[in-house]
Amino acid sequence: MTAPLHEAHPAGPGRALPDTQQGMRRRNLARVMHTVSAEGPLSRAAVASRIGLTRAAVSTLVDELIRSGLLEELGPERPGRVGRPGSALAVPGRGPAGLGAEIGVDHLAVCAVDLRGEVRARAVRHGTNRARSPEPVVAELTELIRRVVAEGEREGLTPVGLAVAVPGLVARDARTVVRAPNLGWQDVDLSVLLPQEFPLLVDNEANFGSLAELWLGDGTPRDFLHVSAEIGIGGAVVVDGRLLRGVRGFAGELGHVPVRPDGPECVCGGRGCLEQYAGEEAVLRAAGLEPDGDRVGLLSGRAAEGDEDVRRALRDAGEALGIALTGAVNLLDPEGVVLGGALAGLAPWLLPSLETELARRTAGPACPVSVSRLGSEGPLLGAAHSVVRAVLDDPAAVAAGA
Amino acid sequence: MTAPLHEAHPAGPGRALPDTQQGMRRRNLARVMHTVSAEGPLSRAAVASRIGLTRAAVSTLVDELIRSGLLEELGPERPGRVGRPGSALAVPGRGPAGLGAEIGVDHLAVCAVDLRGEVRARAVRHGTNRARSPEPVVAELTELIRRVVAEGEREGLTPVGLAVAVPGLVARDARTVVRAPNLGWQDVDLSVLLPQEFPLLVDNEANFGSLAELWLGDGTPRDFLHVSAEIGIGGAVVVDGRLLRGVRGFAGELGHVPVRPDGPECVCGGRGCLEQYAGEEAVLRAAGLEPDGDRVGLLSGRAAEGDEDVRRALRDAGEALGIALTGAVNLLDPEGVVLGGALAGLAPWLLPSLETELARRTAGPACPVSVSRLGSEGPLLGAAHSVVRAVLDDPAAVAAGA
Repeated sequence: MTAPLHEAHPAGPGRALPDTQQGMRRRNLARVMHTVSAEGPLSRAAVASRIGLTRAAVSTLVDELIRSGLLEELGPERPGRVGRPGSALAVPGRGPAGLGAEIGVDHLAVCAVDLRGEVRARAVRHGTNRARSPEPVVAELTELIRRVVAEGEREGLTPVGLAVAVPGLVARDARTVVRAPNLGWQDVDLSVLLPQEFPLLVDNEANFGSLAELWLGDGTPRDFLHVSAEIGIGGAVVVDGRLLRGVRGFAGELGHVPVRPDGPECVCGGRGCLEQYAGEEAVLRAAGLEPDGDRVGLLSGRAAEGDEDVRRALRDAGEALGIALTGAVNLLDPEGVVLGGALAGLAPWLLPSLETELARRTAGPACPVSVSRLGSEGPLLGAAHSVVRAVLDDPAAVAAGA
Repeated sequence: MTAPLHEAHPAGPGRALPDTQQGMRRRNLARVMHTVSAEGPLSRAAVASRIGLTRAAVSTLVDELIRSGLLEELGPERPGRVGRPGSALAVPGRGPAGLGAEIGVDHLAVCAVDLRGEVRARAVRHGTNRARSPEPVVAELTELIRRVVAEGEREGLTPVGLAVAVPGLVARDARTVVRAPNLGWQDVDLSVLLPQEFPLLVDNEANFGSLAELWLGDGTPRDFLHVSAEIGIGGAVVVDGRLLRGVRGFAGELGHVPVRPDGPECVCGGRGCLEQYAGEEAVLRAAGLEPDGDRVGLLSGRAAEGDEDVRRALRDAGEALGIALTGAVNLLDPEGVVLGGALAGLAPWLLPSLETELARRTAGPACPVSVSRLGSEGPLLGAAHSVVRAVLDDPAAVAAGA
């Protein structure tokens, strides 16, 4: 099952499947699953009309999905509707589930999401992971995973994959953390440290955050730029509903876009990178505060109280974000920019200068900037939903493995 | 025929075709065409083994393509080869052809390219188009088109589409020039001014230039950033072999990425954009020269003679390019950067400072920068080949229209 999870994910719905009769069947199974998941409960006739196949063809596909436990029949539709009564189809709240996990600089979190997209179990552990070696951190994460799996099993859920969000660059193998400067990790293969029984998908927290925004956000466009922050600045580029990964898997590194080419030196080797102006630690430094504990809470609390130093620091950060985003918007022409992660909580003080800068520097109407509702929950939810989406994208793989 | 040309283009090989038996047949026809075009002459058996279909299935597809005049049989393969002799298939040098046209600031050009990718007819007219109204310019272009069509017809070629490269932003309708500042054009619908008998595709010159690089370049990667220049700076982003267009069709505007946020004012409304440092006119100004006639020739000539002012101006332009490209590389993580258009001719003096800046500012190995062999021929060739690729991508559409 490892291959389907990993391959289906970057490719989107069924893209990687071969163009044969068998491949067409698998893609059509995916269409049925996505349609019922997004719009169900639906009758077979309604599914057929939505995906443009005959009722007979849809019935064959639906029967297969019911046998695999990926769809369920809710019984006859309530009377009063027009036409012959049909049995409504729904995605079940039991069966396959996605495990999402997050290794944050200051916390660990795990959750289980069912095929309906609901969080059914959850465990969190607070405490810094900075400069700790990977083994004890992953051992603690594994304990949380075991707890969530046990809780899910009591509710009839079977995890079919584990996706882990990390604050760093991940290789295209989707298991190796190449560099996570704020943890102090380098070239860590998480697949040998984590439980072996689940297909694994490791990705950058900003990537998972942007996918959560795409899948769960309210009216998120299919072409957007996602900017988030924990300690550094994370970015992700979504084009036509797909995450742009880059050749090495490093795309979206907005934090190291030069804002002032002669500015302060950055850990990346450059000068005047965005992170030097708008990263949480840079903002705390500019406001004359000590970085400790809940940094976002500290900044938003002080700003709300009217602390002028903090407000000025956030205004300057917003300006730097606006300059970096001008370049990104010129390159990508997205439908919008979404501020997520820790930036969402600081938006009231960042947005005015950010939007002014962006509007001043772009010809024509400025690219709209919105604030994520998911905030710092994004990466964890995006991870768990990646596993669920992989099931919807290729249900035949789950059926074969069941 | 308008729809297939326009749709097949941004979607790539058969992507937009529906997932039905009929759609599968059309995609498989495209696979056969692309295989013979790229690797032919090939026997039916060789095609079958390359695309993973049975020989019988391939024969049915090949027969259909031969009937439509899109493939031809060269007669029995020469003896001495292993196995049963088969008739080799090839793409014909007669039949459907693509018309490419370029509206440059200082010239107009038209060419016809056959299905084999060879330029079979060509016409050019030198002279400035700056501040001329669209009607007389397009009338002159139409004259060149008629000349090239007549010459092509004498060789047995039938144009199946016209693609026009313009130095400006083009709307996603692929016919309206939204803004071409160096021509002084705004909101010009070219479809009403050009000959009506050919399906039309209008695009930015940098976009066509990058496609030419992708299709005709020597070892061009499938993920790259293309930077070119005529008067301004043009850019284009190619991801996994597809041009990134952006929501409005404006993606790739590298020229307006801020390099020094407090730098000189730019026509776009911003300050310190790349174009203010590395555009041809900016470089001429910095070198103390008058912009007139063959600007690239003037700059490269003086630089080759050792003119220190020109060399310094080009070194500074390379530095600005390096700063802007650092941001772009961080965002996109491409496999490489290609310098095209006028920049190709200036590469010897731009590259050293450009590469130094890029290497200094990026962690890990710097993104490799290469120089286009196509240079300023790129946009015209990219335009003509777009029409040819649309035929290869959906041969059934041509067959139906024939």
